[in-house]
Amino acid sequence: MSITQAEIKQIRSLREKKFRDEYGLFVVEGEKMVREALDSAFEVVRVWRRDEIGEAAMARISQLSTPSPVLAVVARPSQAAMPDPEPGLCLALDGIRDPGNLGTILRTADWFGVQAVYLSADCVEPYNPKVIQSSMGSIFRVRTATADLPELARRFREAGRPVYGTFLDGTDLYRRELSPEGLVVMGNEAAGIRPEVAAQVDARLLIPSFGRSGAESLNVAVATAVTLSEFRRR
Amino acid sequence: MSITQAEIKQIRSLREKKFRDEYGLFVVEGEKMVREALDSAFEVVRVWRRDEIGEAAMARISQLSTPSPVLAVVARPSQAAMPDPEPGLCLALDGIRDPGNLGTILRTADWFGVQAVYLSADCVEPYNPKVIQSSMGSIFRVRTATADLPELARRFREAGRPVYGTFLDGTDLYRRELSPEGLVVMGNEAAGIRPEVAAQVDARLLIPSFGRSGAESLNVAVATAVTLSEFRRR
Repeated sequence: MSITQAEIKQIRSLREKKFRDEYGLFVVEGEKMVREALDSAFEVVRVWRRDEIGEAAMARISQLSTPSPVLAVVARPSQAAMPDPEPGLCLALDGIRDPGNLGTILRTADWFGVQAVYLSADCVEPYNPKVIQSSMGSIFRVRTATADLPELARRFREAGRPVYGTFLDGTDLYRRELSPEGLVVMGNEAAGIRPEVAAQVDARLLIPSFGRSGAESLNVAVATAVTLSEFRRR
Repeated sequence: MSITQAEIKQIRSLREKKFRDEYGLFVVEGEKMVREALDSAFEVVRVWRRDEIGEAAMARISQLSTPSPVLAVVARPSQAAMPDPEPGLCLALDGIRDPGNLGTILRTADWFGVQAVYLSADCVEPYNPKVIQSSMGSIFRVRTATADLPELARRFREAGRPVYGTFLDGTDLYRRELSPEGLVVMGNEAAGIRPEVAAQVDARLLIPSFGRSGAESLNVAVATAVTLSEFRRR
């Protein structure tokens, strides 16, 4: 098996969101990640192995400083314009911009058995290489969908499912009853949850701080984890 | 006020750990961080402002792609060879290598009122620029010290204070009694807590996973947050 210059060029182009959007494809690397892709519901378009195409070609298509022995080109799942609310505990992310944060949130959602993660249109793309890397394979297990968050939150509420958000002026998370059928909204790293989404939140939660702390906030992936842990602990 | 070539050279050298060690200095940037440094117990050696030294000099000394208007050179606190156990809840980090993780852990420890964070010798240096950035100023509020962790854990136990660690084969964290005078050990991103430290842990904790999850683990900063939240919630 060999790889053509056109194939190398296309795979390299997938480093950019523009071309991931154009082709509807993304790249994963490493034995573990490629196995996870193959075991998932995602369509793996092609697997490239160093043994077959040679070290030089692998170095050209790899996005890593140390190219891994295997790389897969995977199709992005097609998305409904406006997804229906999934059953069970769900998460909505309002403007998460840091790929490491989004990947870590997906990994955390996976651990805590969250059914679906809804992303506002201005979130970092979930098929960004850094998101995939920090998700540690959870990108293949947690359902993600882009959604209009105010509209999504309205639908949860119409179905009698509470919508939660964390705010610095909320009430103590540890003393609230939390529904395992709820929607948890987490906001942007700097600006938090935007007003039109906050207007749809019916339970404003606070993660209390302790001691003589001067910390002003928690990292958003950390806050998501503490919140999901509270929903799940018995 | 002007800045000399020798000063520019020294400040630039502080991007490397070797020179931070040699001079015992590190750099922070931005109005908020510099103010936090000035308000802290740390000795601020010198503050450089763009208004005073000009844009070109600022661009040379800044470590940021977009130079901030102000930069401070700060002295690293001197360290006891083997620190005594601090009172209250403490944290020990065994081989944390990722600067973003260490910074996020310090920010989280600050939020949850942790008295001291002990670092094994192979942890990333807390004055690494990426650690400082992701700590969001908590580097100036949380006490850090390098320590021999097996020896430190022995001292906690001798003082009748329990030593906790998280393990994939531990027992459900949510059902354990947790002492606010304990030491919590968190392990390396890939390898976890090393055996000689694990041997000193008397309570092996597990953060349970939920649902049909395939996630194998949590990010270490996330696991630290969930654990500290459990210690603090009432």
